[in-house]
Amino acid sequence: MPSPFADIVDLLNIVPQGDEAAVAVVRAHDGQLTKPPGSMGEMERLVEFLARWQGKGRPTLENPMVAIFAANHGVTDQGVSAFPREVTAQMVANFTSGGAAISQICALHELNLRVFELALELPTGDITQTAAMDDKMCAATIAYGMEAIAGKPDLLAIGEMGIGNTTIAAALYAALYGGTGADWVGRGTGVDDAGLKRKADAVDRALALHKPELTDPLAILARLGGREIAAMLGAIIAARQQKVPVIVDGFVATAAAAVAHAVNPAAIDHCIFAHVSAEHAHRAVLEKMGKRPLLDLGMRLGEGTGAALAAVLAKTALHLHSNMATFASAGVSGKAH
Amino acid sequence: MPSPFADIVDLLNIVPQGDEAAVAVVRAHDGQLTKPPGSMGEMERLVEFLARWQGKGRPTLENPMVAIFAANHGVTDQGVSAFPREVTAQMVANFTSGGAAISQICALHELNLRVFELALELPTGDITQTAAMDDKMCAATIAYGMEAIAGKPDLLAIGEMGIGNTTIAAALYAALYGGTGADWVGRGTGVDDAGLKRKADAVDRALALHKPELTDPLAILARLGGREIAAMLGAIIAARQQKVPVIVDGFVATAAAAVAHAVNPAAIDHCIFAHVSAEHAHRAVLEKMGKRPLLDLGMRLGEGTGAALAAVLAKTALHLHSNMATFASAGVSGKAH
Repeated sequence: MPSPFADIVDLLNIVPQGDEAAVAVVRAHDGQLTKPPGSMGEMERLVEFLARWQGKGRPTLENPMVAIFAANHGVTDQGVSAFPREVTAQMVANFTSGGAAISQICALHELNLRVFELALELPTGDITQTAAMDDKMCAATIAYGMEAIAGKPDLLAIGEMGIGNTTIAAALYAALYGGTGADWVGRGTGVDDAGLKRKADAVDRALALHKPELTDPLAILARLGGREIAAMLGAIIAARQQKVPVIVDGFVATAAAAVAHAVNPAAIDHCIFAHVSAEHAHRAVLEKMGKRPLLDLGMRLGEGTGAALAAVLAKTALHLHSNMATFASAGVSGKAH
Repeated sequence: MPSPFADIVDLLNIVPQGDEAAVAVVRAHDGQLTKPPGSMGEMERLVEFLARWQGKGRPTLENPMVAIFAANHGVTDQGVSAFPREVTAQMVANFTSGGAAISQICALHELNLRVFELALELPTGDITQTAAMDDKMCAATIAYGMEAIAGKPDLLAIGEMGIGNTTIAAALYAALYGGTGADWVGRGTGVDDAGLKRKADAVDRALALHKPELTDPLAILARLGGREIAAMLGAIIAARQQKVPVIVDGFVATAAAAVAHAVNPAAIDHCIFAHVSAEHAHRAVLEKMGKRPLLDLGMRLGEGTGAALAAVLAKTALHLHSNMATFASAGVSGKAH
């Protein structure tokens, strides 16, 4: 019987390349703008990033989308979160009604916000007792995440909401990179020392229970979860196929990229990492993948808030690229020597 | 005869304190917002910063202003810049006509932009040959800079334009902190290796020439310049007196803060540092002053571009603080334990 992950592994291994001709068009125009070449640093890189992965010499941001994937986790039975599980659904309502941080960032900066609910009433299995999902459910959830780009965004910022999911992400990192629970867990939404110990213990027990089956990245994802991480992986995969650049949010969203990276590092070349989270181990994960975060603001909210701020920088960078004067048009003298 | 700097030194030494009661109001409201306490990191600090220095429990950003101070420098005769001196005036025209990077950042994010020209037709003295200014001119320029806040901004982002001014800033840092030209110069707008050596040599010759007179921070400022740095110092001083928080741009703008800091470190408590520039020594200067930059985007344009991006973050942070739902209003459960 073929693995339910066969097609997904193919999509991760056979990925379209970036459009370097589009990048060359961007660089040629950038060189004419009234500023010293290279002087806008990462802001210039952002425009090149959009061009490379949109495949457009004149990149667009007409439909930048923040997608939040929300799910619940059986592991919350182990007392790993400072907040009760029902907060996931309450926050989903808050996203929609405009009261959440991500809602207000999107409103102020004209980013489209979509929320993908993943069966909130059916938490995944408690990973200290059983698998989070079976392979078939995991593959189906990845496929569902691919729908995130059905609205044809020209930039996809991915984030998440899910009480308990920093424990899940920590378990994934431990399974992918080694180490124990204590190496990868942090305070999440704000657990105390006892809660932190419960998180580390939950990760260690899950790793011990599932050890024989943690044999490849997608098996790890199914055993440990969660649905929102599987769906974000799907979004990352589909975005690459459909020429949509991706901005990855923080500690939990990065876990989806880490699964893809573990299959094929080149599969996340179209992803930038918005920020380094205040959550303990995020910096180490980014280093494992060789990725440099754009921002370092001590944030640890999730919801795509870091990704949305990075999207604001991308919007600003493209606005500059598209609207600044050239040396010729402004009558400004070029370099003397 | 009294020093022309006597009043300025008084204003730097006798500074209003921050309003901790206003900060307490902000923190109390922040604690009710639908996010874990502290989870927005530096974004929360930005709102507290506005409250502390505006003296308002409900801070405002109705009139955020980017002020660019432009001046010319005799030291450009020493071949220290990749661009000819006339570019300063050409870029001032570009700021006004909307073609510059800073113009477009301000347009996109609704920041007010004001440009202060400082006698562009009269470059300061070539510091390898003579003083940049006499004390009286320096004091008058500081006083002129105080006018930057005449429009009653509720946030002042300061930046500059002046061909040759990274050499001037490097000379100021060398005089304030020790070391030689090579320790403090960088490539500025993009000089080659020979240009970099000319910059270091120019700084070393200026330091040797003026050494007996480099006895206090304001004397150093007068001998080495430049007008835009003196004016930014004035803006920083006036902002403190008038309860206007300040965001300082990059390598050159920081020199104005460094002069103030050398007189009295507490005199720049109302300043935040927008970003660390790609210009060689900026990180070292920030470390000398014990300041952590908000952004690290490899930028080195000046014009207040880094400060404006930080102002966008401040606007976003205040928008969140003012518009997010509370746990009570959104019906979201609080921390369980």
